[in-house]
Amino acid sequence: MAGSTFGTIFRITTWGESHGKALGVVIDGCPAGLALSEEDIQPYLNRRRPGAGSASTPRKEEDLAEILSGVFEGRTTGAPISLMIRNTSQRSEDYGEIASCYRPGHADYTFDEKYGFRDYRGGGRSSGRETAGRVAAGAVAAKILARLGVRVYAYTRSIGQVEADPERFDYDAVLSTPTAMPDRQADKAALACIAKAREEADSLGGCMECIVEGLPAGIGDPVFEKLDANLAKAVMSIGAVKAVEIGDGTAVSGRRGSENNDPFRRSEGQTVKASNHAGGILGGISDGSSIVIRAHVKPTPSISRTQETVNRCGEEINLSVRGRHDPVIVPRAVVVMECMTALTVLDAMLLNMSARMESLLDFYGSSPLISQCDGK
Amino acid sequence: MAGSTFGTIFRITTWGESHGKALGVVIDGCPAGLALSEEDIQPYLNRRRPGAGSASTPRKEEDLAEILSGVFEGRTTGAPISLMIRNTSQRSEDYGEIASCYRPGHADYTFDEKYGFRDYRGGGRSSGRETAGRVAAGAVAAKILARLGVRVYAYTRSIGQVEADPERFDYDAVLSTPTAMPDRQADKAALACIAKAREEADSLGGCMECIVEGLPAGIGDPVFEKLDANLAKAVMSIGAVKAVEIGDGTAVSGRRGSENNDPFRRSEGQTVKASNHAGGILGGISDGSSIVIRAHVKPTPSISRTQETVNRCGEEINLSVRGRHDPVIVPRAVVVMECMTALTVLDAMLLNMSARMESLLDFYGSSPLISQCDGK
Amino acid sequence: MAGSTFGTIFRITTWGESHGKALGVVIDGCPAGLALSEEDIQPYLNRRRPGAGSASTPRKEEDLAEILSGVFEGRTTGAPISLMIRNTSQRSEDYGEIASCYRPGHADYTFDEKYGFRDYRGGGRSSGRETAGRVAAGAVAAKILARLGVRVYAYTRSIGQVEADPERFDYDAVLSTPTAMPDRQADKAALACIAKAREEADSLGGCMECIVEGLPAGIGDPVFEKLDANLAKAVMSIGAVKAVEIGDGTAVSGRRGSENNDPFRRSEGQTVKASNHAGGILGGISDGSSIVIRAHVKPTPSISRTQETVNRCGEEINLSVRGRHDPVIVPRAVVVMECMTALTVLDAMLLNMSARMESLLDFYGSSPLISQCDGK
Amino acid sequence: MAGSTFGTIFRITTWGESHGKALGVVIDGCPAGLALSEEDIQPYLNRRRPGAGSASTPRKEEDLAEILSGVFEGRTTGAPISLMIRNTSQRSEDYGEIASCYRPGHADYTFDEKYGFRDYRGGGRSSGRETAGRVAAGAVAAKILARLGVRVYAYTRSIGQVEADPERFDYDAVLSTPTAMPDRQADKAALACIAKAREEADSLGGCMECIVEGLPAGIGDPVFEKLDANLAKAVMSIGAVKAVEIGDGTAVSGRRGSENNDPFRRSEGQTVKASNHAGGILGGISDGSSIVIRAHVKPTPSISRTQETVNRCGEEINLSVRGRHDPVIVPRAVVVMECMTALTVLDAMLLNMSARMESLLDFYGSSPLISQCDGK
Repeated sequence: MAGSTFGTIFRITTWGESHGKALGVVIDGCPAGLALSEEDIQPYLNRRRPGAGSASTPRKEEDLAEILSGVFEGRTTGAPISLMIRNTSQRSEDYGEIASCYRPGHADYTFDEKYGFRDYRGGGRSSGRETAGRVAAGAVAAKILARLGVRVYAYTRSIGQVEADPERFDYDAVLSTPTAMPDRQADKAALACIAKAREEADSLGGCMECIVEGLPAGIGDPVFEKLDANLAKAVMSIGAVKAVEIGDGTAVSGRRGSENNDPFRRSEGQTVKASNHAGGILGGISDGSSIVIRAHVKPTPSISRTQETVNRCGEEINLSVRGRHDPVIVPRAVVVMECMTALTVLDAMLLNMSARMESLLDFYGSSPLISQCDGK
Repeated sequence: MAGSTFGTIFRITTWGESHGKALGVVIDGCPAGLALSEEDIQPYLNRRRPGAGSASTPRKEEDLAEILSGVFEGRTTGAPISLMIRNTSQRSEDYGEIASCYRPGHADYTFDEKYGFRDYRGGGRSSGRETAGRVAAGAVAAKILARLGVRVYAYTRSIGQVEADPERFDYDAVLSTPTAMPDRQADKAALACIAKAREEADSLGGCMECIVEGLPAGIGDPVFEKLDANLAKAVMSIGAVKAVEIGDGTAVSGRRGSENNDPFRRSEGQTVKASNHAGGILGGISDGSSIVIRAHVKPTPSISRTQETVNRCGEEINLSVRGRHDPVIVPRAVVVMECMTALTVLDAMLLNMSARMESLLDFYGSSPLISQCDGK
Repeated sequence: MAGSTFGTIFRITTWGESHGKALGVVIDGCPAGLALSEEDIQPYLNRRRPGAGSASTPRKEEDLAEILSGVFEGRTTGAPISLMIRNTSQRSEDYGEIASCYRPGHADYTFDEKYGFRDYRGGGRSSGRETAGRVAAGAVAAKILARLGVRVYAYTRSIGQVEADPERFDYDAVLSTPTAMPDRQADKAALACIAKAREEADSLGGCMECIVEGLPAGIGDPVFEKLDANLAKAVMSIGAVKAVEIGDGTAVSGRRGSENNDPFRRSEGQTVKASNHAGGILGGISDGSSIVIRAHVKPTPSISRTQETVNRCGEEINLSVRGRHDPVIVPRAVVVMECMTALTVLDAMLLNMSARMESLLDFYGSSPLISQCDGK
Repeated sequence: MAGSTFGTIFRITTWGESHGKALGVVIDGCPAGLALSEEDIQPYLNRRRPGAGSASTPRKEEDLAEILSGVFEGRTTGAPISLMIRNTSQRSEDYGEIASCYRPGHADYTFDEKYGFRDYRGGGRSSGRETAGRVAAGAVAAKILARLGVRVYAYTRSIGQVEADPERFDYDAVLSTPTAMPDRQADKAALACIAKAREEADSLGGCMECIVEGLPAGIGDPVFEKLDANLAKAVMSIGAVKAVEIGDGTAVSGRRGSENNDPFRRSEGQTVKASNHAGGILGGISDGSSIVIRAHVKPTPSISRTQETVNRCGEEINLSVRGRHDPVIVPRAVVVMECMTALTVLDAMLLNMSARMESLLDFYGSSPLISQCDGK
């Protein structure tokens, strides 16, 4: 089945494996007339790249995006935008053990069961590198959203037991710390935990959060295409995410209605909510408050500690996963969450343009009601 | 935008408002040859119905499903199955206040912003009654799954602060208690809490869980159409759900890899996982263990306690929502979660049938490789 | 597979068999705020009904459409519109022979091969009655198009060897003659041919044409979703259609470029084409001229003349198809073609609304380019 | 709107403009385990290439396909297959006049109307070069079909007034003559006509035909996704095609039922049709006979003869289209038609695998009917 496409109007198709020749994305349905160049995309890819800090692996990946189509004289033409990133660090590694055994927490076994065999080089299609295409496309979506006054940003909320303190929120820290935390103190504490986990041949999980500001009320659909449902899918489709929360999320199950309802009130001539337990979505449709989404990420399954597992021949074996692995995925996944959110929100905005008859009449001009069956 | 359709091969389209003439669902893509009658569907609809217990509203809804097409001589024909449920309890109520004001926690405001106006009778399309169509379709999906050896069941895990104790798990209780809890002691405690909330003109949230047993490994896709991503969308699309967890869910963010990885081992000649933190899905594809999904449901937003809000004219007002309302939605939502899960899993199984060349060759017969360009 | 849905934004799903309880359609994605009632739909269904003339069967079908959802206080709400038509003339006929034999030119054999068995009552899902749902939905699309100044109309161009003369074009005749021809003289001649064919226990084919007037330039997409490609699919999906032409159609293959190109010129300050060989579409996108589509319809396969065929048991038999059958399908198919065209054109218009950045900026308001990655 | 994707399970997305850096296609949903290399694809691309004969332009295009992903150790993995073709002959041409004027018969005007501007280099996205991606993907589809015993082949049926004689059918001629005609005499006559048209600064249209042999009965769906409807869309989406016929096509409108019906009979223990006016499809589903499709192609709109037209500023001008242009498109379009047909047929075959309950039971194993609502 064709599962590499996301979106209805602003639709992306990613391709490429961890250690193949290249990977990329085709963006179809991008409105014509957007100023676009590689420079709009590269900063997003750089955020996906392993940083200098101890939070990520020492491997140097130079993810350079190349625009192959869809842009002419600096503007999008409405044609599909093909973005490609060459894989530069493919070396002929020894995959011997990984090729034949099932790493716990990885998709080796499930791929073999589904397809009969797998591209075992670096995880193949289930590698985190697959997200490079998502990020490149998300950068384009984010640029369009910015023009429409919608801002999307994500950050690390916790790593292991270390949580960022909202009181110390500093967005600059998200872009400059190795943990992508918005709290420099928490960043330091988290780095210490990471170092310890690494020493102990172990790994850590964490939580990331994404905010959408400036989204008008009325975006999303009431039933299966609820904005929160599509955000949940978008974010849960990022490898290693095991839970998604909207607004106050899991906390609502222990609450009373009188605590959880957000009263409406008036402010500067607008109807607004006095609180935002709902996370900006009511009945699947944006309510004008900020959208708040959280994702819980499991600890990196690749650990050098010895683990029990099974190989392709059905023999029980012991395995120690060698090689360069991030002891925590979260700092690099933050930009992926931001991009999946941007893609989802933009697509919902494009779909929303035909929700009302009056919008059609504004766009195409109205006509005195001519009779169809009367012909001319 | 057309947001009332769910699924790719086994595809359902729901329609109908709370207080319209009828509501229903069209199931398209149901395999031909399935024995099917209204009796397969009615038990599921009955579980959606407000029960006798104090956990739900006294309103009596007789949701009788009628099969209008797609079944001939007791078997599905491959043609779309149209299922309709007449709304019998539409009375000409006084919707005066609801028609003009924005109930906190409801979609009144967001519908007005999206569509310019709304069908205010009983919540219209954003009513919980919309789920009747999902449940009717889910009953059909569940019957097919049962033939394939896949069992899907859901239950209430907690209401307010009361949690079911897994040690006392008793599935019969799910179907017979007013709370749909699998623990009769917890059921009693929860009923007491519900009674108290009702007295205090308030409402409660809760958590529900769904299990899929017997699903073979290899179902789902690696990137955007991950089985967990589609389950997250399916479950988050149920009104009032604010968080979705797969397997150990939110707990994974605080864990170490060595704790969270599930070792593989051999059992009765099969490769199996020794634990199931992953909730049965690795890399978006089922791993042969049980699928475990949890959903957190917000407290019913309709409370008779006075709340501050705003009306359509932009005036701040006080509102007390009158009428019959469940003080907790969870017991009736359990079957909806079960059905959305069944629909998602079945569709993934149908899509999976063409994952391997050898399956095509088995199905259509193989041929010595004839040359295409040579023509005949 | 789910093959009963048509359209992307304005999306319809039809259901129902010839002799089941009812048939209908769900329209999802209809813009909110359209005035709509059964009276908008009924005239279209009436045109599908067998007429009084000898061009169609004496069977009286009362196709009364009922709106079950999606309309509130006379206007569409944005929710799915469910339209149902009860089958009133289902009598317990003797289907004995049809149930077990393969009628030449019908889908009996192919349904059995695909599904293993079939609903043999009156053709089941492959009956012309399936088109009632398309027509009901098309009536809604046509009403929206009319508000936007786009007129769609179809008529019979030929029956057997009798062609309507464009010089005598009279649209009133389309709605009032039994043949739906726009030429009363041709109508008379065609009726004589039909009478003769009927006498000879035979049937006739014919050609129908559909025109779209007032469609602005710029509608449709350049590659797979070309407007002409989607029209071809829409029209070829009507049972018995075996060829589709756009503009001059098959004639172009014998032409030279200098004959076939339509020069552009200026008229009343507009760029227009001096001729319309192209039928209003260039590169898959409307060019502002009228869209012209033709469909060739095969003679009714049900003829009372004896035919050789095979039954389910694989025995060669002789068959004479008894019962009421139109000796020519075209007059009743004309409104189906009109409706499929309206559905296709409207969907393309809705999709087109997000083709340009400037349209998005007009709709949502533009913003000085805020930085996404800078967050707040 | 995202219009560059084709297919449901076997789904392709093409990208690239005539004179951009590269063009290509992503194939998603290809079954795993197919032996595949560039050598399977190149022969198809070579057939798209301008030949040595006078039927096509002297421009030398070296379309070399590179597989960038989805193949590991010589077999497809189930991951998307990205195929890229570098544009090697982009030179900095002088597009001055074409950039500002609307060529008759081209999409210049319609692109400007839709998108506000266009990539005018060599036709941009509306260039025939866009079909290179379709052909590369079609080669993969054709290889799978060949393994399943299904053969697809197309050829030129007529150019201008010259028709191939079926009596002289010789498939070798299709691959070796410059016209792709299956009749060497007709080829010679057509080449003379082409030479004459070229001399007269003019161009020719033509007709091509595609045959699908070996397709089992039962493929396709009964309503909107009829096999013939999808073939019509697929073929009409090829630039310059203005009419599509299935089987006897336009001829059926002048026929009687007794002439047009194909009687069933028995042959070698099989139910077969005694004739094939239907072109292998009844009720939208394949009937086991060969599928026959014809497409009528308009004469190349680029002619060096002076034509009247309008420029972007709305001035009437005279235009003579210079540069290298095929005087007839048909010989190069034949392989495109073959590929679009292969893609359509394969996708229908994959979708068909879940049409019957018994196929599901065969694939997944059946189970005594367990009760869903009883849980465990």
